[in-house]
Amino acid sequence: MATLGLVEYIDAPPEVRTVYDDIMVTRRIDRVNNFWKALANDPPTLRRTWESIKQIMAPGALDPLTKEMIYVAVSATNQCAYCIASHTAAARKAGMSDAMFAELMAVVGMANETNRLASGYQVELDSQFVVGQEKKRFLAKAPRSPRRKKG
Amino acid sequence: MATLGLVEYIDAPPEVRTVYDDIMVTRRIDRVNNFWKALANDPPTLRRTWESIKQIMAPGALDPLTKEMIYVAVSATNQCAYCIASHTAAARKAGMSDAMFAELMAVVGMANETNRLASGYQVELDSQFVVGQEKKRFLAKAPRSPRRKKG
Amino acid sequence: MATLGLVEYIDAPPEVRTVYDDIMVTRRIDRVNNFWKALANDPPTLRRTWESIKQIMAPGALDPLTKEMIYVAVSATNQCAYCIASHTAAARKAGMSDAMFAELMAVVGMANETNRLASGYQVELDSQFVVGQEKKRFLAKAPRSPRRKKG
Amino acid sequence: MATLGLVEYIDAPPEVRTVYDDIMVTRRIDRVNNFWKALANDPPTLRRTWESIKQIMAPGALDPLTKEMIYVAVSATNQCAYCIASHTAAARKAGMSDAMFAELMAVVGMANETNRLASGYQVELDSQFVVGQEKKRFLAKAPRSPRRKKG
Amino acid sequence: MATLGLVEYIDAPPEVRTVYDDIMVTRRIDRVNNFWKALANDPPTLRRTWESIKQIMAPGALDPLTKEMIYVAVSATNQCAYCIASHTAAARKAGMSDAMFAELMAVVGMANETNRLASGYQVELDSQFVVGQEKKRFLAKAPRSPRRKKG
Amino acid sequence: MATLGLVEYIDAPPEVRTVYDDIMVTRRIDRVNNFWKALANDPPTLRRTWESIKQIMAPGALDPLTKEMIYVAVSATNQCAYCIASHTAAARKAGMSDAMFAELMAVVGMANETNRLASGYQVELDSQFVVGQEKKRFLAKAPRSPRRKKG
Repeated sequence: MATLGLVEYIDAPPEVRTVYDDIMVTRRIDRVNNFWKALANDPPTLRRTWESIKQIMAPGALDPLTKEMIYVAVSATNQCAYCIASHTAAARKAGMSDAMFAELMAVVGMANETNRLASGYQVELDSQFVVGQEKKRFLAKAPRSPRRKKG
Repeated sequence: MATLGLVEYIDAPPEVRTVYDDIMVTRRIDRVNNFWKALANDPPTLRRTWESIKQIMAPGALDPLTKEMIYVAVSATNQCAYCIASHTAAARKAGMSDAMFAELMAVVGMANETNRLASGYQVELDSQFVVGQEKKRFLAKAPRSPRRKKG
Repeated sequence: MATLGLVEYIDAPPEVRTVYDDIMVTRRIDRVNNFWKALANDPPTLRRTWESIKQIMAPGALDPLTKEMIYVAVSATNQCAYCIASHTAAARKAGMSDAMFAELMAVVGMANETNRLASGYQVELDSQFVVGQEKKRFLAKAPRSPRRKKG
Repeated sequence: MATLGLVEYIDAPPEVRTVYDDIMVTRRIDRVNNFWKALANDPPTLRRTWESIKQIMAPGALDPLTKEMIYVAVSATNQCAYCIASHTAAARKAGMSDAMFAELMAVVGMANETNRLASGYQVELDSQFVVGQEKKRFLAKAPRSPRRKKG
Repeated sequence: MATLGLVEYIDAPPEVRTVYDDIMVTRRIDRVNNFWKALANDPPTLRRTWESIKQIMAPGALDPLTKEMIYVAVSATNQCAYCIASHTAAARKAGMSDAMFAELMAVVGMANETNRLASGYQVELDSQFVVGQEKKRFLAKAPRSPRRKKG
Repeated sequence: MATLGLVEYIDAPPEVRTVYDDIMVTRRIDRVNNFWKALANDPPTLRRTWESIKQIMAPGALDPLTKEMIYVAVSATNQCAYCIASHTAAARKAGMSDAMFAELMAVVGMANETNRLASGYQVELDSQFVVGQEKKRFLAKAPRSPRRKKG
């Protein structure tokens, strides 16, 4: 059981039930996850977290499936077992196929590998990745790296 | 400069040039990033890493833009400055708009927050997220949590 | 069971018992946690770790409760299940109320979120946060950012 | 410069200025940090993040200084240079002395060490840290570990 | 059970059996770990990951035992329970004694501690650690720090 | 400059000079790194950290070079720029060749990748990795996975 226990619907005060109801209606489910039941011990955090999630995960420039897969990518990187399980389920519900999951994992694994290679080798930033003002300062100092001859 | 220095095209042995050429042709660019120039000090790692990246980032069940955004999500979670810069540039090149970047960051931030809330509150896994054999064992023990009355 | 097993008091050599005794007396408990029993397989590490913990967690400029809450904050960020459980228990024993725990978690969650927003957006350091010598170098280059008009 | 650049007050649309004004009034400062200027490229995220921070960092069961130190603890654990710099400055402003900072760092360092010792040694959870329902299941199986004889 | 389930040898398609056979022959074992059985749901990732592991973990400038201990060090730092368990077993099989394990853990713990002290104290890089071109730029600015008088 | 500044030898109180002297004699160097100069603002932490490092990094069941490479592995995993730079230098001084560095990085990268594949795929622990008491409980439930036919 969670540190402060789980607040079940039947025992929840009105302000918590209001959030639970909104979660269930928004997500078309008939009970809320343990995550929300644990946060419900602190109603302001429950409300704030749900309002943020609701705003962030809604369709926008990115579709909900892409957002759920990004959630899984972060959770796998952070090794959060609860979040991997719950967001993998959510991503599947949003349409993630086995093939999509497998490619997602391959990218997550590779990114975690090359993140360490880049840092471990102490690779300096390429001039073309330096943005704005920093770039001006950088370009004034860095010699052009040799380019491949064309043609 | 990187720990072992950067191997420029002009100084590279044939096996390294072959990889550089493949990177430039595959990505339609006219020079390779410092990341590859650093790895080129170890040609087998250069080749293996590039072959893996090439296979993983190719279009498949997920499109290249989604894959680049997942790469940015992991890199931001890991705080790898080089990787954030280079893959943000790659994602933009693959079509990521400012609005898509902003939503990506919002999801990454929120996932990092709720990963810690779930772990910090020691939330136990919901029975519906437990898969396969584990599930059978789990369900035999866990009492049903109360559902919301319908209708 | 832990990798090297747990060393119970009854089986412990004198040098380990001496540390166990000091832990129990200092913490006013009648048995030591599994963490110490696991480390006891390497008596020098057991002694060094306990001496460090004893020195660091003692009252000083910060009180023991604040220190235990900081321990929980780090453990939740790192997703260490054992450490979250044991230090949450220790923090409660030191006086952490449910309300304090909930606020602690809210800060930990938010910090993990904004850490990624700051890195993901590649936010450059404000001149007022640059300290000492670095500051002088920085200020010579950075233009003043516009301030809000007063009055 | 940040990925999407920084939105200065003079160039900000009204909805962004409203948030900037609230930040400056709440924090009694005369300009906002680059963090907020970077987020301002996405006004809903700017508003949501500020509203969350404002709610979370306000005095409650924990005082603002403790909260800022927890923020520094998380940021140091995550290696976020921007956040370490800005929240160390904020904690000092809230009253953190050099001695408090030094003790904070000592706890953060030690927690990061013992987190890995606990996980690396695969230490199993002590029965007294298992909470609620889990505890019942656990206690039914685990033999009592030997206690120190009293007296 | 793993997200996509485990592919047992008896149910595996030829391309998966070929990899399983190579793993068992190379490692002189008579069944593959669950890790491989989970990846087998995505044969290209199974093959690529195994080929990479096989190449990387083979004897070279570093011996296999050292490599397995490095694997454990990374896994403990990342808090990956599965990887800690499986690579600790592999390191033992490669010759890691209890004493070597204990020293490995001590180094991993200490490195995780000092990583945060270095970042938390915002320690600037010593001029002698700055390499190549960066060094020239750095040395032009940094005053020599006082040396201890010899003799 | 570091948060609390750097304590140079010439300005250091006797208790700090004693530690600096021991560092320089033990490591056969003629000045201490900035890391120690930053910690010197808190003499008890300086002393404790140095005594721990001195004990842990001394030759034992593992040789100093292996220990320094483990330090680099952890630092690269954690993305600590200062620590990567200083411990890469220390490892080189202890005898790490370019080829050894390259293999070290390859293992670190791969471990970071497979850590996330194992967690992301939610791979359950193999029965042979479960140790001691846990094993007995586990084996009572888990069906044997099919083995490859021999001969």
